[in-house]
Amino acid sequence: MNYHMIRYILGQIMKLEAALMGLPLLVSLYYLDEGMIPLLSVMLPLGILGYILTGFKPKNQNIYAREGFVIVAFAWILLSVFGALPFVISRNIPDYVDAFFETVSGFTTTGSTLVPDVESFPMSLKMWRSFTHWIGGMGVLVFALAILPAGSAQSMYIMRAEVPGPSVGKLVAKTQITARILYGIYVFFTVLEAVMLRFTGMRWFDCAANAFATAGTGGFSVLNNGIGGYNNVWVEVIITAFMLIFSINFNLFYLILIKRFSDVLHNAEIKVFFGIYILCTLMITFNIAPLYHSFSKALRYAGFTVASLSSSTGFGNSDFTQWPGFSQTILILLMFCGACAGSTGGGLKVARVMILLKSGVREMRRQLNPRMVSTVKLEGQSMDSEQLSTHGSFFIIYMVILLVSTLFISLDKYGFEVSFSAALTALNNMGPGLGAIGPYGNFSEFTPLSKLVIAFDMLAGRLEIFPVLIAFMPRTWKKA
Amino acid sequence: MNYHMIRYILGQIMKLEAALMGLPLLVSLYYLDEGMIPLLSVMLPLGILGYILTGFKPKNQNIYAREGFVIVAFAWILLSVFGALPFVISRNIPDYVDAFFETVSGFTTTGSTLVPDVESFPMSLKMWRSFTHWIGGMGVLVFALAILPAGSAQSMYIMRAEVPGPSVGKLVAKTQITARILYGIYVFFTVLEAVMLRFTGMRWFDCAANAFATAGTGGFSVLNNGIGGYNNVWVEVIITAFMLIFSINFNLFYLILIKRFSDVLHNAEIKVFFGIYILCTLMITFNIAPLYHSFSKALRYAGFTVASLSSSTGFGNSDFTQWPGFSQTILILLMFCGACAGSTGGGLKVARVMILLKSGVREMRRQLNPRMVSTVKLEGQSMDSEQLSTHGSFFIIYMVILLVSTLFISLDKYGFEVSFSAALTALNNMGPGLGAIGPYGNFSEFTPLSKLVIAFDMLAGRLEIFPVLIAFMPRTWKKA
Repeated sequence: MNYHMIRYILGQIMKLEAALMGLPLLVSLYYLDEGMIPLLSVMLPLGILGYILTGFKPKNQNIYAREGFVIVAFAWILLSVFGALPFVISRNIPDYVDAFFETVSGFTTTGSTLVPDVESFPMSLKMWRSFTHWIGGMGVLVFALAILPAGSAQSMYIMRAEVPGPSVGKLVAKTQITARILYGIYVFFTVLEAVMLRFTGMRWFDCAANAFATAGTGGFSVLNNGIGGYNNVWVEVIITAFMLIFSINFNLFYLILIKRFSDVLHNAEIKVFFGIYILCTLMITFNIAPLYHSFSKALRYAGFTVASLSSSTGFGNSDFTQWPGFSQTILILLMFCGACAGSTGGGLKVARVMILLKSGVREMRRQLNPRMVSTVKLEGQSMDSEQLSTHGSFFIIYMVILLVSTLFISLDKYGFEVSFSAALTALNNMGPGLGAIGPYGNFSEFTPLSKLVIAFDMLAGRLEIFPVLIAFMPRTWKKA
Repeated sequence: MNYHMIRYILGQIMKLEAALMGLPLLVSLYYLDEGMIPLLSVMLPLGILGYILTGFKPKNQNIYAREGFVIVAFAWILLSVFGALPFVISRNIPDYVDAFFETVSGFTTTGSTLVPDVESFPMSLKMWRSFTHWIGGMGVLVFALAILPAGSAQSMYIMRAEVPGPSVGKLVAKTQITARILYGIYVFFTVLEAVMLRFTGMRWFDCAANAFATAGTGGFSVLNNGIGGYNNVWVEVIITAFMLIFSINFNLFYLILIKRFSDVLHNAEIKVFFGIYILCTLMITFNIAPLYHSFSKALRYAGFTVASLSSSTGFGNSDFTQWPGFSQTILILLMFCGACAGSTGGGLKVARVMILLKSGVREMRRQLNPRMVSTVKLEGQSMDSEQLSTHGSFFIIYMVILLVSTLFISLDKYGFEVSFSAALTALNNMGPGLGAIGPYGNFSEFTPLSKLVIAFDMLAGRLEIFPVLIAFMPRTWKKA
């Protein structure tokens, strides 16, 4: 274990977080609100600590899978540990566990909240809360790779551990260039969304905050009633479009940039993703139309909510906890499935679900004909038993975490449905759950134990499980 | 596809079912109840049909995996199709879909009922209902193998498709002898349970019916209030003990018979099974003790209910839908896990859960060290990636069936919790679910669509998924 490199990179992340708090600080200076002191009193020590930790550059810069997992897991925990402090110092979220929960929810782009009245926050801290979504969406370590002087050649290990999806293809040979391209696309669409929202008459502050929350597929809102609070169909249409855009594998945008259009057209995952979107929207529309006595209203709510949960954003424009069981069950299935691999969205990812389903079909064929050699293909790549067993094991660990978390959360006062949906929504970085934790509910009434379990699930979900588990396995820390 | 062998064996199964209806017919003759005509009017045509189908013995007696799956799937469907008729003819369950549901629930040893007042049934049909559990518990085809003249050498394909568990070890070289040993053990414990129940003062009829339902780990009761209706702690203790006995891999009883005690002591699955039983009983006891204001009462209810769900029997002595969310969540987890492989119990099976968990741990090690060769061991046997991918794929298909069934069932009037627990309890052959379908509820208010979906899940669960899916795959019926 290369402790010096871990120390060095974590120091860089701390400096970076201090710098990123500059954005809410600017907001605070503009609005002259109470967020200034809390922000500064975190930024300064954090920056100094970062400088100390990065003072000595390690001689041995080699890092491998082991260090990659540990760095990513600790970076995300540290980000949340410090990112929560401004809320506590400003007394907007006085309890530290609550503030930690909210910040993990922000960075992991989950968007589950325990703040009943976010409108009472100073502007700067509202912005920090929404900005965490943007930072976490594409990944803070990817960001560091993009902007810092090119580090070790093995930075791929870090990127692989942080970017969502079953497999990460480097767009170009150099990791740093890949990271820059990804962030370039990310910034472009974020700015585009903010500008388009501005045309609906939304003030710039809300445009930025909502664009950050959409881009990271987060779901925090600056209004207590979420996106429904604007009561503007164009706002909902624009956000629906961008929730879907940010659910697409960013590699496809790169392929469009370099004019490899046929590769985009032959992508199987995106077809399945939009197929699911259209199918589920229609099913829910017909299912809830009688409830709203209006097909167009039903379509508006269904189209937005399905995009919100397919993309794992979790914005709400209606209270789906009032919908019939069929619609709620569709939403639960969407939570499992999630967005495309290589996007900022959560869930199991459409590509992984496709691999899992194909390996199920392969198994049925093998039962009939055990000696048959049968592989699974996705996007032109064949997978052998070894790789399929990796995906199968990922799914097993995912289900174990889901069920064990449900058990811990069920120690709380809620029944199975709420406990299960709390774990599910956290592990898939969605945001809302069923019952008391629906789009117009919040997570404030859970005990600290449940909050910490849910926060763990959010981190496990965002980092695709392995980093958080491996970082705490004794074996990881043993000498090779 | 050897159609003649399929026809021949299905004919034998029909003759066998006609013969097995002899037991309720005897009951009918003893009590002179209204079950006689309904039973006879099914037995006679069924027997004749069976004789016709078995009239010509096929020359080519070769059957392979393909035929094995088809025979098992169709045998179980036919058993239920005909087994349901006496209830319809007697007007005790006038609707055919309802009667089919109840009979599938019986044969698959699920024990989910839609009969609100079973005490109004004629004695003979109560007995037939409970007897279906016993027939289905060890498997009707295994029974046929045990009693019919030794058939083809490939009868192992049938046995493998019918006996529960991730792997079936032949006890001895010949399949027929294995089948006889299994049934011998099965009969012995069934008789022992009936005799022990008799000592509590229970009448012989109830002793037999309850022993049949326990042995198959079914859960149908002859009282409307289930086992709680006897209000006798000794009845509950005896039934708890036998529910646990019938959850154990029958191979272990055979090992005891041939005095290989150390093999039994080194069995990992049974240790885990009893570990789970004790742990869950204690957790639930402490969780529900405040509800009943009594530790001993809580222990009595928890000990019985945990045995009932671990074994997948589904007998009730208390209404667990009133328990706190934590206890209900434990019960849900027990439904997933189920009993030991090679027992009459349902669920994923402890051995399979152990393999899945171990392959998850293996995957974490491989993430750290991708070139490491790491196998999974259970009961001294190593499994490679190929085998692990089979288990992983089984789990994937299981989850897909669970979630898709939940979606169909949620078209009904119930919310997510009831729909999910209905699919879960069916797929694991448990019996009761949460909410309206708890131990004192029933399945009568579902629509016929939901009932058929649930019946499919019961069959899929009992036959470990592959036979029912493979029998209906077009590929199965194609010429090789």
